[in-house]
Amino acid sequence: MVEPWLRANGRDFCSRLILGLEQYASPQLVRDVLAAGRCDVFITTLDLSNRRPSLLLTDLAEEIELSNYTWIGTTSFARSRTEAVKTARTLREEFEIDVIKLDVRSPDNTPDNSQTARAAEELVDDGFAVMPFLSPDVSVAVDMADAGCAAVRVQASPVGSGYGICDDVTIRETIDAVDVPVIIEGGLGRPSHAAAAMELGAAAVLVNTAVAVSPNPALMAESMRHAVVAGRSAYVVGSSDPTLAEY
Amino acid sequence: MVEPWLRANGRDFCSRLILGLEQYASPQLVRDVLAAGRCDVFITTLDLSNRRPSLLLTDLAEEIELSNYTWIGTTSFARSRTEAVKTARTLREEFEIDVIKLDVRSPDNTPDNSQTARAAEELVDDGFAVMPFLSPDVSVAVDMADAGCAAVRVQASPVGSGYGICDDVTIRETIDAVDVPVIIEGGLGRPSHAAAAMELGAAAVLVNTAVAVSPNPALMAESMRHAVVAGRSAYVVGSSDPTLAEY
Repeated sequence: MVEPWLRANGRDFCSRLILGLEQYASPQLVRDVLAAGRCDVFITTLDLSNRRPSLLLTDLAEEIELSNYTWIGTTSFARSRTEAVKTARTLREEFEIDVIKLDVRSPDNTPDNSQTARAAEELVDDGFAVMPFLSPDVSVAVDMADAGCAAVRVQASPVGSGYGICDDVTIRETIDAVDVPVIIEGGLGRPSHAAAAMELGAAAVLVNTAVAVSPNPALMAESMRHAVVAGRSAYVVGSSDPTLAEY
Repeated sequence: MVEPWLRANGRDFCSRLILGLEQYASPQLVRDVLAAGRCDVFITTLDLSNRRPSLLLTDLAEEIELSNYTWIGTTSFARSRTEAVKTARTLREEFEIDVIKLDVRSPDNTPDNSQTARAAEELVDDGFAVMPFLSPDVSVAVDMADAGCAAVRVQASPVGSGYGICDDVTIRETIDAVDVPVIIEGGLGRPSHAAAAMELGAAAVLVNTAVAVSPNPALMAESMRHAVVAGRSAYVVGSSDPTLAEY
């Protein structure tokens, strides 16, 4: 049995590969990529403004045994702190989801650290387990951990860019500085990027576009899974903690 | 059944991870790393000058079913073209090994492309399947392929450095330019380096020090295997060749 790397509001995260699911038009494809990635987290959301089409849970439920997954909510369609907080609250009211992948992004689609931090504090106070998405900034990440966030998600490079990790020094410093799991996310376009993130000591990676737009999303999800296993093992082998060496 | 990516003098190479074996003092460890890496190539050599201790084949044979492996010889202890050619011929006389991992290195331990090329031509003429180790140089690699080498091995970064791929442009150009498999080798210190090499289109990677000096060589070998699978899949998925997409 794999130990969870995170338990948030009673929900377990074991898989160190998390896949974003906003870009899929087919429930079958969602099923296939989650299986190929051996993912255990299912991310759902509400598009409050109906700006984009999204898969219906009823359709997904025909393909996936949803209860096998750790459900979390995302605010990735929110364009402001207020909208993000409202999305989270609606997700809890409608689906009892109280673990939130919190995104508040600037117009250029990078994390708005200031607005995100305010939304995170509000949601933590409101009883949510919160995983805010941040641009690399050690002190903001430390503040978020100190404020009670369950984990912090740090941007590797612009979302969808495929550039990999632009600032590995700050990310490594962040991992050293905070006492909650660090998820690396954004711009992880290749398996080598995911492996490198894990080698830095990330608890997990979140991959989205690289899998979703691949000509073969399931094979790319499987590839990312192998990369995560590879990078994690190397990190653990390199660690001086003998208990980790048993991983 | 996995198709071989190389058949050289009737010997099949299926695993895309090859491990250097010169640095091990224990037959059990050799057995364990080969198993963990799911390697199918066993590299042996003769140290003509007895400069270094090496494992005895009789000891290895107690731990490993050697006939399950594709045996090749290495000239990595040779310090000159003449010594490399002599090592190859002695390996054939004593062990019927006629596939040669050809290394002729400069005093700074980087490949001596000129001496290597001359040794390669001599050995090809003598009936060997030759895999020369080269510093990145497209025209030398093309010459080696044209001269009948079975594969070319291109240095990623200095042997043992762990720097990863220093010149990915030249390596990619080499892969595009030659019609034999390209093995990337040297300085691949982390799984992300091995994955990146495969993403560039390498047929295989050869990893040595990163596994041999790891606190847990078998786990690092397994990690490298995952990385190779990950990178290869991503390369294949990204390829426009529909038959490869079935890989």
